[in-house]
Amino acid sequence: MKRIQPLKGTRDFYPEQKRVLNFIINTWEKVAKRYGYEDFDGPMLEPAQLWQMKSGQEIPEQMYVFEDKGGRVVAVRPELTPTLARMIAQKSMELSKPIKWYSTARCWRYEAPQTGRLREFFQFNIDCLGTDNMLADAEVVATAITIMQEFGCDKSDFYIRLCNRKLIQAVLESFQIKKIPEVMRIIDKKDKVSEKNFKEMLKEYKLSESQIKDVLEMTTWTDLYKAKKLSLSEEGKKGLEELEELMKYLKAMKLDGFVKIDFSIMRGFDYYTSTVFEVFDQRKKFRAIAGGGRYDDLVKDFGSREKVSGVGYGMGDVVLELFLKEIKKLPEISREIDYFVAYMKPELVEEFLPYMEELRKKFSVDLDLMHRGFNKQMSHANKVGAKKTIILAPKEWEKGEIIIKDMKTGKQEVKNLKRFLREDHQG
Amino acid sequence: MKRIQPLKGTRDFYPEQKRVLNFIINTWEKVAKRYGYEDFDGPMLEPAQLWQMKSGQEIPEQMYVFEDKGGRVVAVRPELTPTLARMIAQKSMELSKPIKWYSTARCWRYEAPQTGRLREFFQFNIDCLGTDNMLADAEVVATAITIMQEFGCDKSDFYIRLCNRKLIQAVLESFQIKKIPEVMRIIDKKDKVSEKNFKEMLKEYKLSESQIKDVLEMTTWTDLYKAKKLSLSEEGKKGLEELEELMKYLKAMKLDGFVKIDFSIMRGFDYYTSTVFEVFDQRKKFRAIAGGGRYDDLVKDFGSREKVSGVGYGMGDVVLELFLKEIKKLPEISREIDYFVAYMKPELVEEFLPYMEELRKKFSVDLDLMHRGFNKQMSHANKVGAKKTIILAPKEWEKGEIIIKDMKTGKQEVKNLKRFLREDHQG
Repeated sequence: MKRIQPLKGTRDFYPEQKRVLNFIINTWEKVAKRYGYEDFDGPMLEPAQLWQMKSGQEIPEQMYVFEDKGGRVVAVRPELTPTLARMIAQKSMELSKPIKWYSTARCWRYEAPQTGRLREFFQFNIDCLGTDNMLADAEVVATAITIMQEFGCDKSDFYIRLCNRKLIQAVLESFQIKKIPEVMRIIDKKDKVSEKNFKEMLKEYKLSESQIKDVLEMTTWTDLYKAKKLSLSEEGKKGLEELEELMKYLKAMKLDGFVKIDFSIMRGFDYYTSTVFEVFDQRKKFRAIAGGGRYDDLVKDFGSREKVSGVGYGMGDVVLELFLKEIKKLPEISREIDYFVAYMKPELVEEFLPYMEELRKKFSVDLDLMHRGFNKQMSHANKVGAKKTIILAPKEWEKGEIIIKDMKTGKQEVKNLKRFLREDHQG
Repeated sequence: MKRIQPLKGTRDFYPEQKRVLNFIINTWEKVAKRYGYEDFDGPMLEPAQLWQMKSGQEIPEQMYVFEDKGGRVVAVRPELTPTLARMIAQKSMELSKPIKWYSTARCWRYEAPQTGRLREFFQFNIDCLGTDNMLADAEVVATAITIMQEFGCDKSDFYIRLCNRKLIQAVLESFQIKKIPEVMRIIDKKDKVSEKNFKEMLKEYKLSESQIKDVLEMTTWTDLYKAKKLSLSEEGKKGLEELEELMKYLKAMKLDGFVKIDFSIMRGFDYYTSTVFEVFDQRKKFRAIAGGGRYDDLVKDFGSREKVSGVGYGMGDVVLELFLKEIKKLPEISREIDYFVAYMKPELVEEFLPYMEELRKKFSVDLDLMHRGFNKQMSHANKVGAKKTIILAPKEWEKGEIIIKDMKTGKQEVKNLKRFLREDHQG
């Protein structure tokens, strides 16, 4: 029979690959919990409209959209933030503030599969809602830094690109630029095109030579010195204040060494209104490892009665895994069980079954289900990563004894079964 | 702005609901690991064909199917077993036997939402492949019993309905019944219709009065006594042997008290070839809590070069949660963090930030991000389930001291900050 191939851009997680995915997800969630965030989730399918409102240009184009049997236009979620906003909007008055939530969301986007980009991926989301205080932005950025440290990465491996959309917008306004959203979208693509192409793209929006020079220079700023000297709009001043406040908190946390001010960071989503940031590979080999920002109007846009501003980011598993592999920080995670039961005669295992069930109340225990020869059983014990093997041998069994073999040292020990079961043995 | 409603038959998992779901999933997976099973997963979307081959009549009708942008006919997975079979078929020669895998799969079916049935649900799957030995079937059934026990359920709450398809088929043959698959499908519906309707459905397939009487009587058998007295086909004898062997192992495991032989159990999937079983509510208020069986040809049907027989089951979260609630075994799971930091002046928390980051390397720590008044902070500490609160008060802080308040007893203690950080404090 012809084999059915899985879809392009998807992955089969055999146990070996699933262990790696679980390691990544557990690390994400462990850090989120330590910062006091709570786990939540929404449905995998939602009305497509949810992402057609505020997710920008690219996302709706990349969605898996279809009509269900009831005629509803449904999308497989391409990202989680609109679901979050919908859920908060539904219950905003009941939820005590700040709302600190995380989630590992399985998402789908119809893109050309390439390095670091698949059609199905897992995205960790962390969001803090219900306060404008920049301490929230600092905490959210701190979780991203801590996650990277938890993976064994340090300043030489990654950094945070940080800016504020209000401020960038005001800077562009001070250059007398008119089509600001369009120009911002071009700046977002700067790293992906040549300088020549970049200039040409800007020219298409009728920027003068001197404006193009200004934009190019702005993207090289690494501090607030030049922005401060410009005559900024009120909104721009607000953005500058926010960014300075955020930097103050990150400095107090002793995390400012991880952060670089960067006026070329935009993020694709239209819903960001203030802080924007990315976790970035120092060697710039990969695209952003994580990205996020502050979205002050999104929950209101989804029908909340009160304003609930928020800040958060997403970190996907695909680029992260490639990055960790590249810098050799992805550990080998092998299979492991506490005990394997090997028997010299099938009758013995039948008699041992009730004790095995007892052991399984506390330990992971495996045995040969196929009644293979003893040597095959011992080799299987190694394959499943047994720390110890319980050997059932006729002579010892008659005396109520079992043999315990330490699979690392090879040392064997005869033990009374009843006593062994009573022992508080440590794996 | 108008609110967007989530789709019918889906759930929003606010943290409160997510804690319950996580409790259920963690219990499933904990038991699977103790029995030596490994975690795996496949994609959420797969070619629709995968479920059109062997999943029976109902599943393909209930699938969410659509054409993707590349013209592929794609389904949102309605169950995991065909994905498992595809993955094993792809690599059967490389995988060491037996293959013992588990997975918690998010699935979708387009059904009328009703009690115990939603369109999106989570299904735990456990499967043992690569051996015909009934010890494997016994182990798989044992994991289901252990899971139910782990949830605090005992013999008075649930039981296992168990039979063998080869045997049932042979019994029906011995009644001279011709349209066996159709009759089996009717027997599967027996509990859902009146006896009168049941008889009428059988009559439609031209069963005589005496054949109907035979079928009705068969569905009441609770042991193998009557089946053994019939003249059975070779296949039927094989099925009888398998079932007796399986019962022997379950008895050896001291689990036979949970099991009732039941000739009315069929399971909807066409791929079962031998053992079939269900976890069932003693009060028969709910539909099956779990169901599964042995499928000897499925992996081969999906293109494996060698025969890889398997046995496994699925347990969904929806019926299980209703059942546990009904019998009052679903625990209250409240939010909990180790420390909450409350401060009398905003300047204090800024100075405390680096220590908080240090504490977060080990503990879950939260603080007020909104610079609210002290009383509001203490009430928020209770809302987030803080076990202890670290109080930053100006006088103590000047001396390098903090106040630790036990939120359960209300007891307060002044501690030197540096010493506190060095301590190996237990939550």
